[in-house]
Amino acid sequence: MSKGCLFVISGPSGTGKGTVCKELLANKDNNLFLSVSSTTREKRVGEVDGETYNYVTPEEFKRMIGHGEMLEYAVYSGNYYGTPKKTVEKMLAEGRNVILEIEPQGALKVKGIFPDAVLIFIIPPSMAALKQRLVDRNRETEDQIEKRLAAAKWEMEQAAKYNRIVVNDDLDACVCEIEEILRDNAKKRERVDNLLHEKY
Amino acid sequence: MSKGCLFVISGPSGTGKGTVCKELLANKDNNLFLSVSSTTREKRVGEVDGETYNYVTPEEFKRMIGHGEMLEYAVYSGNYYGTPKKTVEKMLAEGRNVILEIEPQGALKVKGIFPDAVLIFIIPPSMAALKQRLVDRNRETEDQIEKRLAAAKWEMEQAAKYNRIVVNDDLDACVCEIEEILRDNAKKRERVDNLLHEKY
Repeated sequence: MSKGCLFVISGPSGTGKGTVCKELLANKDNNLFLSVSSTTREKRVGEVDGETYNYVTPEEFKRMIGHGEMLEYAVYSGNYYGTPKKTVEKMLAEGRNVILEIEPQGALKVKGIFPDAVLIFIIPPSMAALKQRLVDRNRETEDQIEKRLAAAKWEMEQAAKYNRIVVNDDLDACVCEIEEILRDNAKKRERVDNLLHEKY
Repeated sequence: MSKGCLFVISGPSGTGKGTVCKELLANKDNNLFLSVSSTTREKRVGEVDGETYNYVTPEEFKRMIGHGEMLEYAVYSGNYYGTPKKTVEKMLAEGRNVILEIEPQGALKVKGIFPDAVLIFIIPPSMAALKQRLVDRNRETEDQIEKRLAAAKWEMEQAAKYNRIVVNDDLDACVCEIEEILRDNAKKRERVDNLLHEKY
């Protein structure tokens, strides 16, 4: 069985990478899986350990960070959430394609850990459109939005380091373009696999 | 003026990467330039320093290797030939797109030095076809060809680390596919450039 492929979807805040990921996961033909995150928050009714999350103690989570076992992590309301490297490795070894949605700062680090990963960077159609999206979210002050836009510029200066750049002007078109990248990637990997197993 | 883009064409010996590069350079629409190599061999009649080659002494060449100033180098008939990092940097700064044809071992190193480089890996349609091409060249013993094929397998196991994989089954189709990659890349870089310079 062939190893799975890791796809990382990244891009500045407000480019809609979360929605793009949801759409990609919803299309079963894409054969994509989310890796189960680890968290320090308490298990809620109906949640399943190892399915909803991997529940770990704060000590264990901090130990994993310290040992570089977390691909990325974040803290919300005092609880840690993160993607353990091992979970991703296990899924890839099982032949599953894994998709991760990661902030730009973390995305480039993933390439160092998984050099085979396909990093896709989503850009907005214009800065004005990006600003409008952030304003429409109605979550932040004008000052916070300006900071996000400044960060977006810095992040976009790194765009060429990604494998592919996709513009999210129209959601359907953006998802289609990424699906085309997935198909092309699968086709090429299959070609290489066949070459590696060919008797000549 | 925007910076140029570095394209690296690589692939196992016998995949036809040299021919592909020549075709890409011959099409002026591709706006590609070869970087001038440095060499320790003597200047021949009609050659121009800084155009045909940069002529340097063996001491200078070895000093450049020692200081990591060579992107890649090789020795033929006792003379050194190599690509100085600085030459590539200068051309990119002048807005020129640079193309390099590099053996797989060197190609991945270039990515470490130029993280924005687009690495294109050329694979043969089959191992049998690759073997036939090496046999048809009539340059090597059966033993040497077997070694090349074993090396090709190892190199192809690294294929996913490249930005793009292209099959060289039909030369024209292969060149067309790479030209499509160049165009897509130019288009996306322009989009990012516009975003970075947009007043919003």
